[in-house]
Amino acid sequence: MVSLKDKDILHGNQFSKKEIDAILRVASEFEKELKQKSSISLLKGKILATLFFEPSTRTRLSFETAMQRLGGGVISLGSVEGSSVAKGETLIDTVRTISQYADVIVIRHPRIGSAKEAAEASSVPVINAGDGAGQHPTQALLDLYTIRKEVGTPKGLAISLVGDMKYGRTVHALVELLSHYQVRLFLVSPDSLKMPEEITSNLKAKGLEVVETEDLMGAASQSDLIYMTRIQKERFSDLSEYEKVKGRFIINRDFLTQLKKKIIILHPLPRVDEIHPEVDTYPGAAYFRQVRNGIFVRMALLAMILGKR
Amino acid sequence: MVSLKDKDILHGNQFSKKEIDAILRVASEFEKELKQKSSISLLKGKILATLFFEPSTRTRLSFETAMQRLGGGVISLGSVEGSSVAKGETLIDTVRTISQYADVIVIRHPRIGSAKEAAEASSVPVINAGDGAGQHPTQALLDLYTIRKEVGTPKGLAISLVGDMKYGRTVHALVELLSHYQVRLFLVSPDSLKMPEEITSNLKAKGLEVVETEDLMGAASQSDLIYMTRIQKERFSDLSEYEKVKGRFIINRDFLTQLKKKIIILHPLPRVDEIHPEVDTYPGAAYFRQVRNGIFVRMALLAMILGKR
Amino acid sequence: MVSLKDKDILHGNQFSKKEIDAILRVASEFEKELKQKSSISLLKGKILATLFFEPSTRTRLSFETAMQRLGGGVISLGSVEGSSVAKGETLIDTVRTISQYADVIVIRHPRIGSAKEAAEASSVPVINAGDGAGQHPTQALLDLYTIRKEVGTPKGLAISLVGDMKYGRTVHALVELLSHYQVRLFLVSPDSLKMPEEITSNLKAKGLEVVETEDLMGAASQSDLIYMTRIQKERFSDLSEYEKVKGRFIINRDFLTQLKKKIIILHPLPRVDEIHPEVDTYPGAAYFRQVRNGIFVRMALLAMILGKR
Repeated sequence: MVSLKDKDILHGNQFSKKEIDAILRVASEFEKELKQKSSISLLKGKILATLFFEPSTRTRLSFETAMQRLGGGVISLGSVEGSSVAKGETLIDTVRTISQYADVIVIRHPRIGSAKEAAEASSVPVINAGDGAGQHPTQALLDLYTIRKEVGTPKGLAISLVGDMKYGRTVHALVELLSHYQVRLFLVSPDSLKMPEEITSNLKAKGLEVVETEDLMGAASQSDLIYMTRIQKERFSDLSEYEKVKGRFIINRDFLTQLKKKIIILHPLPRVDEIHPEVDTYPGAAYFRQVRNGIFVRMALLAMILGKR
Repeated sequence: MVSLKDKDILHGNQFSKKEIDAILRVASEFEKELKQKSSISLLKGKILATLFFEPSTRTRLSFETAMQRLGGGVISLGSVEGSSVAKGETLIDTVRTISQYADVIVIRHPRIGSAKEAAEASSVPVINAGDGAGQHPTQALLDLYTIRKEVGTPKGLAISLVGDMKYGRTVHALVELLSHYQVRLFLVSPDSLKMPEEITSNLKAKGLEVVETEDLMGAASQSDLIYMTRIQKERFSDLSEYEKVKGRFIINRDFLTQLKKKIIILHPLPRVDEIHPEVDTYPGAAYFRQVRNGIFVRMALLAMILGKR
Repeated sequence: MVSLKDKDILHGNQFSKKEIDAILRVASEFEKELKQKSSISLLKGKILATLFFEPSTRTRLSFETAMQRLGGGVISLGSVEGSSVAKGETLIDTVRTISQYADVIVIRHPRIGSAKEAAEASSVPVINAGDGAGQHPTQALLDLYTIRKEVGTPKGLAISLVGDMKYGRTVHALVELLSHYQVRLFLVSPDSLKMPEEITSNLKAKGLEVVETEDLMGAASQSDLIYMTRIQKERFSDLSEYEKVKGRFIINRDFLTQLKKKIIILHPLPRVDEIHPEVDTYPGAAYFRQVRNGIFVRMALLAMILGKR
């Protein structure tokens, strides 16, 4: 039997296919339960701590919502300026302290590997909500949940991942999950933002068909699903590099007309200009449904980690 | 029968007299209930999101208190710096996202009309907690609730509204509610901060007696109630204009001696120097009772919007 | 019978020995209860407001955790920039407002005496969570709770308090509590950061043996317990004074070997470099257990103040 009790959630590659199936099944159960019941008290008395060392709205509020929808409480570090970090405290000391208060910790931090470091310091389970250009496994799980709801099984799908393959942690985590399925992947990015070779070679070793390209139209027109991402200014140390690539890949209504009729568009959000707002009313534009799915998937993770599912 | 289920609260002019009566009656019931019961679970399982794009203590905490006093949970955007907005997300995308999480949204934003825009983007009800120099309808409702508690019906009262009639959103909203009653209004402001003509002509069209004046003493000495407001520095693009008018209208103990004996003093707070602290112990100084009333009125609105009253 | 119902918690010297015993007994009961029960609903329907006018992680989150572990709700002022204070509101007005919302207020403020001022303005009980270089009584209570758990009674112990005796509010509060016991105190600090004479003379008047010294090794080698503190940069108006004294007293593994075998090390945290991380695995390094004890002690205070114990 699958159990995530007391486990950290750090990396897309940590999950077996069975575990992924179990998480998404529980997420689906919670989705139904929320429609039927006015409240759920499964995690009553439990406390989630959110430690966001980087700006975030979506992910922090998604976790805080998920925890409260299960009847649990939340404590939140708030801005770094108002915290012990400003007094010179190390990440390890902060995490050790917070783990004396909370039952589970969600952390976002600008440095790759920081979530793992936090997990080692913590006496309670730690969930990685983004560590720099590293990983973002809960986003990947909700992406997969959305793909399943929108299309059915990912098996056999042609999927374009578009934007920043180099620093984009959501795509780094997502391809780990997709590697369990026979998908065809188009990795569409400027040459300077290609997927790290270590990741692509690993995907190929697992038997996936992977095409790296700068030609969005060529890839998209063959795809069943497009996963757009924002090219994140904050990931660049050299801003002139950013200026060169921003606004390179854009989807609008015109573009859509040249694609498969039932194509699904996803985006982890926030978007800037990669997807024109005129696309929002297209039936396959699933990115706000994707946001909502995040609640169910995070409810599943919290409940399972705390041993209640 | 009056129902606010699933309705947005955007503007003082949206309420019929019947609706106002219903809201204030429910507020009064909650005020009593809070005294009798140790807790209320009416909104258990529901979540309120507070999106404050402008500094606020009072209003945000008032809503968060109201929601929790009803057993509900709260998620809060936090400072704009730490949010998706800093990543270039539009207000519409932020609201569409948050409406996937919460059951009701409270928004404050520096731009007139932003709350309406948010309501159109949102899939859940939106409450306007101040949109620039526009409206602040929940403040107006708690002001009216306070007037009723302190004086009885507003009918026939002479009321001085003092300070910034031009940018003051609380007075803009309050006069809409008072327009349902036969009150006499003195609008006391510097000439540069007069009430927009569109609002005063509308009040007169509804049969109210409206006097615009710069003479505070003249107006106050004829009034049963004075509603002071702070002249808000943050509303001025030209600070020299602000310097000219600040500190123009001030109430102190001396001033009070020249007014009707039972005069009631209100203020939406925070105050700077418009009301001297020596006034606080005067029995008719009702502004901190007014703060408290905000809880009951917002409990009423939340419960009614969520279909529980 | 001891009762703290409706009382403010402002100063270490306000407690009788009986009251201290009662608080720590209740804390101990809650510690056990948390292990046995999945949730406690003692303060359901009650609201705690946290007003932190100075950076803090530990203390704010500790109180917010304590309140939620008892089933209560929390409202939080957030950063000062986003508050009415930025609009020019006085502390007194802010507190009077918040006391209309919450059932109990926790305040931290950079000015000595501010908590007392807040308590006078508030209509609900106020807990001082640090007022500048003044007091921090709840920290002192959790320190004492930790001493008791680690060593048993403080009676007869030799205790070194190390670091900033002048501005260090946690030691100011702690010595007040220790003055109820026959302890020997070594106050180890640079000459420029000595304990205020008023406090030491008071301790001596109560019959305690007090030694002031700059010799950490001399004091520590005679001690059963060392209470380290960070020399807080933010307390100095003259930074060159800070540069002179920082890094003066440091504990590492080497140092430990020269002390009593069962010596206990405490620290209110956050630390910077006063205690080397290599000390953390030493069995007597109790500072993270101390963090945890803060929850139980604050649960006790909240429950007692709100009349539920």
